[in-house]
Amino acid sequence: MTIKDMLGRSGVVSREEALKALDEHLAIPDLRPEDIPLRETLGRVLARDILSPSDHPEFDRSTMDGYAVRSADTFGAAESHPALLTVIGDIPMGTMPDRTIGKGECMKIATGGALPQAADAVVMFEHVQAVDAATIEVVKPVGPRDHVISAGDDLKKGERVLPKGQVLRPQDMSILASIGVATVPVFEKPRVAIISTGNEIVSADSLPGPGQIRDSNSYNLEGLITLAGGTTRRMGIIPDNEDRLRTTLLAAMTDCHIVLFSGGSSVGTADFTAKVINDIGSPGVLVHGISIKPGKPLIVGIVKRRTSGEHIPVFGLPGHPAAVAICFELFVKPVLALFTGAVMHPALTGIYLGQVVKAKLSRSVPSAPGREDHVRVMLERRDDGLWAKPVFGASGLISTLVKAVGTVVIPKNAIGIETGEEVEVRLF
Amino acid sequence: MTIKDMLGRSGVVSREEALKALDEHLAIPDLRPEDIPLRETLGRVLARDILSPSDHPEFDRSTMDGYAVRSADTFGAAESHPALLTVIGDIPMGTMPDRTIGKGECMKIATGGALPQAADAVVMFEHVQAVDAATIEVVKPVGPRDHVISAGDDLKKGERVLPKGQVLRPQDMSILASIGVATVPVFEKPRVAIISTGNEIVSADSLPGPGQIRDSNSYNLEGLITLAGGTTRRMGIIPDNEDRLRTTLLAAMTDCHIVLFSGGSSVGTADFTAKVINDIGSPGVLVHGISIKPGKPLIVGIVKRRTSGEHIPVFGLPGHPAAVAICFELFVKPVLALFTGAVMHPALTGIYLGQVVKAKLSRSVPSAPGREDHVRVMLERRDDGLWAKPVFGASGLISTLVKAVGTVVIPKNAIGIETGEEVEVRLF
Repeated sequence: MTIKDMLGRSGVVSREEALKALDEHLAIPDLRPEDIPLRETLGRVLARDILSPSDHPEFDRSTMDGYAVRSADTFGAAESHPALLTVIGDIPMGTMPDRTIGKGECMKIATGGALPQAADAVVMFEHVQAVDAATIEVVKPVGPRDHVISAGDDLKKGERVLPKGQVLRPQDMSILASIGVATVPVFEKPRVAIISTGNEIVSADSLPGPGQIRDSNSYNLEGLITLAGGTTRRMGIIPDNEDRLRTTLLAAMTDCHIVLFSGGSSVGTADFTAKVINDIGSPGVLVHGISIKPGKPLIVGIVKRRTSGEHIPVFGLPGHPAAVAICFELFVKPVLALFTGAVMHPALTGIYLGQVVKAKLSRSVPSAPGREDHVRVMLERRDDGLWAKPVFGASGLISTLVKAVGTVVIPKNAIGIETGEEVEVRLF
Repeated sequence: MTIKDMLGRSGVVSREEALKALDEHLAIPDLRPEDIPLRETLGRVLARDILSPSDHPEFDRSTMDGYAVRSADTFGAAESHPALLTVIGDIPMGTMPDRTIGKGECMKIATGGALPQAADAVVMFEHVQAVDAATIEVVKPVGPRDHVISAGDDLKKGERVLPKGQVLRPQDMSILASIGVATVPVFEKPRVAIISTGNEIVSADSLPGPGQIRDSNSYNLEGLITLAGGTTRRMGIIPDNEDRLRTTLLAAMTDCHIVLFSGGSSVGTADFTAKVINDIGSPGVLVHGISIKPGKPLIVGIVKRRTSGEHIPVFGLPGHPAAVAICFELFVKPVLALFTGAVMHPALTGIYLGQVVKAKLSRSVPSAPGREDHVRVMLERRDDGLWAKPVFGASGLISTLVKAVGTVVIPKNAIGIETGEEVEVRLF
């Protein structure tokens, strides 16, 4: 008698073979979109493209404290021959100035203030000498749009702000707030049923009798499911009884996208699990036994929901704690990740937020010594590895933060980083 | 007139100087422990050491399907001269066998079953030939404790299961379940107040009037606070008015551990923010202006709560979106991390779960070709870098999963990994 005859197994396969068999029968479920408050969207997956309902910002804004000017009035200005301008008023924050500035005129403006008509730049306080209450000297010229974020610089009306499938990060929540998306369409989380099996298992809050142990694997699984973007349905602790297991699997299938049997490494339980998966079919059990350690007794199957024809992956996870963790990581997690609807940034596959990765800088970035610069970058995977592409644009723009996937630090005393130099990118 | 005079700033300092000033006045708050259901503990911080209330498991368990035997009865057994044993019964799962096995006797046992008295090992089915219903031939000897987890192998009564300060991972939830800790003492999350400032700011669900924009930075901050283990108290959008800012800061201080002013890069707002921090004192404002870009207008201060004398860090964050993200990462996040009570694994500082790190293997691990082995490892930081130390013990033990911080894969066709070889560790 061989182990194969004994366990009724179809033969042990490699990890690659198991994933291939699973992949052939996998169908991504149609997750329902749900509208949730913006505050609760961290880590959730966008259910549709979000377009900007208007230009953002909707008006020209100052990025500095200073004076809104017509830039042409400052051309040629210098310490030795400053440009003299008449201050015709202040611009209170949160209001739109009702005056147009004329030639030789300016208005006092704070960071974030709205530029008056005809003004096309802002002179910083640092480059101004006050002559009297109504007159200033500008000692350095400004060009058109200097220290100004123009209407639509962040987003143009109709522009895609975030794509369907985006896993929402803090900065994504920020840009949604800026365009007034206070309720956000996200995909429901895939529901993963856990069926704890075994006659010896009692609940975590019970006192085990002789020969009994508490159900602990389901808590490991629930944590892993949560981290992978799913939500858990606990189907209870089911004894080693074919009818009970079948009824419970059918109940789990009505509402869940993935079903896990937890426990049951023993021949009896494994046989029952395999039998009910095959009975419900089809195709039923795809893999029974795998050449990894720990994790050998893994069962992988697909069952078809009768009402909808939907394909539901079912995993019979070994009972040993370490085997549960490994089998989840290798088989359940990729399926769950696929089911969330999340579209990973192509350069980020296998890379995690918060991590620091090495990349080559795609173009040189200068920096002033004495100042530590934090440069926002995108990542691009090329044949020769990861490249970090600086995202340019004022720090007042939210969109630069959303386009970027991380930052590169230029140290305080450096004068910049050259093209092709290796840098560390902290992902965010 | 210089920028310093104009902004009333005490001078721009470096990142290191700012962190040092903050560090000198920082006092870690006494967070209250709270008891929460085990299912909700993922990522929470343990408020006290958890000790095992009993040996775990409480009885000797089989790790294989097979026969519980006296190992001495199998010594010398081989295909050519098998040991003949009498099967005196089955051990149903979840029961404690009431019989003692005598010399030459055995009982059928499943994975996880309780060993009968006098049995000290389990013979796998694979090494047994059935002669008749009551007799088996054992063709390979077993040693004492082979295929057995002994009572107390996972945890001894009184042993520390998890330390105070542990950030709970899925496997930690699992071991807590196994010892019956269904309600878990964790630290309350540090509360971070967000005071959005600026006369031009309206809420995310409002339609901005001319010259107004929506409050978006607070959503970025709320996401970042959540990721760093804190919880957010929104104090509303406060106009640039000294009295209103003071009243709001005092209200935030009654309940929160950290206070953030969001927005207010403009001179007026920054001055008000600095003034109310100094008025409440002491020490008040520590840093006003920093040599990083973006982020220069940052204000860092500490205020003292009158009733308790507690020191509360207050940050005046610049209004530019990119500056908010950078200043949070560099200054607020480390303070918040400290306040959570979380104790990071020393080798893991700066390393994130889910990441893959390179390390050298501290001792050779053999593997059978044709099988992919997943070895649980601890990490140790030595002078010459990270070392991965294999955690030995049956995969049936939960404690090996809790002691380990990651896994190393030995590929299917390898026969093992040598001491000192570089390996990739996937952290979990």
